[in-house]
Amino acid sequence: MKTLKGLFLDSLADIYYAEQQLVRALPKMAKAASDDQLREAFESHLEETQGHVTKVEGVFAEFGQKPRSKKCPAIVGLLEEGDEMASENKGSPTIDAALIAAGQKVEHYEIATYGSLKEWADLLGEDTAAETLGEILEEEKGADSTLTELGRNA
Amino acid sequence: MKTLKGLFLDSLADIYYAEQQLVRALPKMAKAASDDQLREAFESHLEETQGHVTKVEGVFAEFGQKPRSKKCPAIVGLLEEGDEMASENKGSPTIDAALIAAGQKVEHYEIATYGSLKEWADLLGEDTAAETLGEILEEEKGADSTLTELGRNA
Repeated sequence: MKTLKGLFLDSLADIYYAEQQLVRALPKMAKAASDDQLREAFESHLEETQGHVTKVEGVFAEFGQKPRSKKCPAIVGLLEEGDEMASENKGSPTIDAALIAAGQKVEHYEIATYGSLKEWADLLGEDTAAETLGEILEEEKGADSTLTELGRNA
Repeated sequence: MKTLKGLFLDSLADIYYAEQQLVRALPKMAKAASDDQLREAFESHLEETQGHVTKVEGVFAEFGQKPRSKKCPAIVGLLEEGDEMASENKGSPTIDAALIAAGQKVEHYEIATYGSLKEWADLLGEDTAAETLGEILEEEKGADSTLTELGRNA
């Protein structure tokens, strides 16, 4: 039988894997961008993402657990789709729009996942973990808004 | 060279594929739910999703195109992750929380995709298409909010 704590820890392992994959993917996205502001947005979100890896490790510690990764088919598919969009639009004036769209798909995946994790931490009465997860959630929403703005001004 | 119209139509083919996959997945999610309200929410979103398939066909028509599907690795990964979560939590008190989380990941994928599509339709001056895409976007946001509410009261 799975408990809510078990479901929470599975989902935390899933986002821990996803954040690690993003640390690898964001420099490629920054390099592929043609607009300076977009490149800087990806670089700045890379720094935040590195911070999220550390914060997620802190949440594992709050639960008395060592960090563990669980391969997450969704982020694999999202990054594969991002690679496809980047290669189909390489050298075209649409490259930045394609990268923005791919980036927002990833941000929304994270918004959904951290949203559930924060709700579950609240239900489990794990206030410190809920607070950390809420901070990460706000940064993901901020990254999504930045990409929306850049898309409008592209 | 890819144009913004070309990027738009590729992305439309991608979400057309995703909506068709969801028409197949939602009845399984409804069947797996243990809470009546959650089952009804999935059934009601299935009806909306069938409407989205028709609306996306209408957007293709606005662009003078026949509907086409493009296999979308992200939705494949998201649905695979949903199946995994459902089977890991089957028969446990966490099944509804797992289904809600999986459903919200899919809703957020659609929110990101329709958000980009609506922006691009606006940039292309395709007002009717932009309006239809905005309607679908609002329904996806509504489905996400319903799942958030059900998760809180579970």
